[in-house]
Amino acid sequence: MSAFNPLVEKLSPPPVPSVAAWGRAYDGSKGPLIDLSQAVPGYPAHPDMLRLLGETASSKAFTGYGPIEGETELRTAYADHFSGVYGAAIEAKNIQITSGCNQAFVCAAMAVAGPGSTVLMTEPFYFNHETTLAMMGVKTAFVPCAAENGFLPDLVGIEAAITGDVKALALVSPNNPTGAIYPPSLLEAIFKLCREKGIWLILDETYRDFLPNAGQLPHGLFALAGWEETLISLYSFSKSFCIPGHRLGAITAGEAVITQIAKIMDNLQICAPRSAQGAVAKALPLLADWREENRQEIGRRADALKAVMRGLNDWKLDAIGAYFAFVRHPFGNKGSAEVAEQLAKQAGITCIPGVYFGDSQQHYLRFAFANADVATIALLEERLKNFSLS
Amino acid sequence: MSAFNPLVEKLSPPPVPSVAAWGRAYDGSKGPLIDLSQAVPGYPAHPDMLRLLGETASSKAFTGYGPIEGETELRTAYADHFSGVYGAAIEAKNIQITSGCNQAFVCAAMAVAGPGSTVLMTEPFYFNHETTLAMMGVKTAFVPCAAENGFLPDLVGIEAAITGDVKALALVSPNNPTGAIYPPSLLEAIFKLCREKGIWLILDETYRDFLPNAGQLPHGLFALAGWEETLISLYSFSKSFCIPGHRLGAITAGEAVITQIAKIMDNLQICAPRSAQGAVAKALPLLADWREENRQEIGRRADALKAVMRGLNDWKLDAIGAYFAFVRHPFGNKGSAEVAEQLAKQAGITCIPGVYFGDSQQHYLRFAFANADVATIALLEERLKNFSLS
Ligand SMILES: Cc1ncc(COP(=O)(O)O)c(C=O)c1O
Ligand SMILES: Cc1ncc(COP(=O)(O)O)c(C=O)c1O
Repeated sequence: MSAFNPLVEKLSPPPVPSVAAWGRAYDGSKGPLIDLSQAVPGYPAHPDMLRLLGETASSKAFTGYGPIEGETELRTAYADHFSGVYGAAIEAKNIQITSGCNQAFVCAAMAVAGPGSTVLMTEPFYFNHETTLAMMGVKTAFVPCAAENGFLPDLVGIEAAITGDVKALALVSPNNPTGAIYPPSLLEAIFKLCREKGIWLILDETYRDFLPNAGQLPHGLFALAGWEETLISLYSFSKSFCIPGHRLGAITAGEAVITQIAKIMDNLQICAPRSAQGAVAKALPLLADWREENRQEIGRRADALKAVMRGLNDWKLDAIGAYFAFVRHPFGNKGSAEVAEQLAKQAGITCIPGVYFGDSQQHYLRFAFANADVATIALLEERLKNFSLS
Repeated sequence: MSAFNPLVEKLSPPPVPSVAAWGRAYDGSKGPLIDLSQAVPGYPAHPDMLRLLGETASSKAFTGYGPIEGETELRTAYADHFSGVYGAAIEAKNIQITSGCNQAFVCAAMAVAGPGSTVLMTEPFYFNHETTLAMMGVKTAFVPCAAENGFLPDLVGIEAAITGDVKALALVSPNNPTGAIYPPSLLEAIFKLCREKGIWLILDETYRDFLPNAGQLPHGLFALAGWEETLISLYSFSKSFCIPGHRLGAITAGEAVITQIAKIMDNLQICAPRSAQGAVAKALPLLADWREENRQEIGRRADALKAVMRGLNDWKLDAIGAYFAFVRHPFGNKGSAEVAEQLAKQAGITCIPGVYFGDSQQHYLRFAFANADVATIALLEERLKNFSLS
């Protein structure tokens, strides 16, 4: 057989399907499977969302090729929404619509970093960021985020890691996998450091609609003069609208960045799927209250998980935030993949092993608690209490 | 401002929007604009296609994340369809669904070639193939396809170009931009050469549903033992189903290739948009007759263009095929971009300048005649006759 690209060949298989396979091997003896693996909202999309999706998909208006940067209607609606969220003046020209936030990251990373240059990430990291850079031949370097520091990076650590070949720092807040919410002041200090060092700050804000407080400003960076020279923000419509299957995300950046990214998007897939863009443009204002209710619901789920963890002596909730909890398992020197596999097969709980987010995360499991409702989360206590490694 | 990736920065802006801008500058004095620029079918999607798209998009069943490789239903339906087209035994496991055929090319190219290695292409080339490789840091080398040879490459030329760093040969048949249809015997000889040299043959067959003869076998490669070791075939649902806005394409390859590509797709965008997959799975068998009618209609459009060109002395139809004609303009030493720009602005005909498909194609313009109906194509004769460069 002809050869494969070694950068791709040495990537591990995608983690989510492997974990799902452990879940399928569970015999049901402890009750129904509790799926805390993939980050998907455990409630359905709003009926109006489905109606709008049906209307646009059956319309002739969206069958042709569309603008590379996205439908004007969605870019405008999202820019307005975004301006409200951040107290800033963002316009349609600052928006590139993508086929989800993984693709938004591919576009942002490729716009600023080529093969052989380096992108800095925090560790634990979101695995697709790491594998994306690896397959592109971009080098990665990591700023460790200690549990003692709430899994936040510190400025000194970041500054030390910004060597000459670093083109960008990629952050995720609220964080996947830890849930950590970066305080606005920390983000501002990091932004200023990046600006001073002449590197890009790529900020993945997939979970920003699930901050604990209503109307909470994620940060004030978009109100700073000259933000366009340093900041690229990524977003996903998957979680907030419960429509990951429709594949929509967005990039907010300076016009000069959008110009570069449009060239990449044209090659990657010409434009994001159009009819879903038309539907989400309408849903953005329409479903604001529904999204607020979901934010509150996710908060209740976080509280339910905290209550469960208080009842367990040997499991430790080292971090919990917008969508995820990063849980320290009690099996000291056992690998996190072994723990997660047995937890799935014996106790019917699927979650992602810490090691998938970095080699030094063997003590941890990521619980995507947003997947499960309050009653289901309450069932975790018994199952975890009775669980032991065989 | 922080710096951009030079590989992306030096790409030209996407060609199709630039050409559309020339069209917008046309004053209408010669009658309505005739758009022969982007390769889109000039007729609408079938009402049943729209109905199916509406049904699936409004269904809860497609809102969640789906399998990376694609919906089983579509992979199975496409494998069956494909097996029929090629007289071969292709299974669902050989299929990766993508968000269009540009993305299929990204996946295939990335699976086999990393930064610094080389992919061989024919010239004239499909511009997105060239820019995709350039942004990935993959080197390109070109096999010239002479007009005298019907814009087909010759085996000697290919063999000479396969140097040690070449990982794959990318071909497009029926060709974009020339329309050239590669004879099965030529494809088989090229396939065998690639196999012998240990390089991949990536075959973009976006236009294979528009071959001139009903039921014509595009080639017999999928019936050859061991095709999986050498061949990767790409397809687009955009043209045949008139749904480019829904972004669907497919890769047919050996299972080992699909395994590599699934890792890439997970990073690029997790999975292709799901509801359109569900709809096309149903449309594939349902709209077979309609696709056959369209194939015939495109044939009539080709005939209409041939008739127009016979009436013109100084314009030469050097190639015409499934979807495109490659037309030699009469303005000898003038650049093709200048000719195309004036043709748009003065005569209200948009088409793509030859130079976008390779530096040595300055004498040519690509007419995507499939965009225009027979009556509209007939109008070209007057407009071209009266056109002169200012
Ligand atoms: C941090 C982060 N970024 C991006 C994504 C991908 O989201 P999308 O579905 O929009 O591609 C996810 C999904 O889990 C995520 O957790
Ligand atoms: C040869 C070729 N490949 C791929 C594509 C992209 O098709 P899709 O719309 O499926 O991305 C086109 C579209 O014009 C094409 O001509």
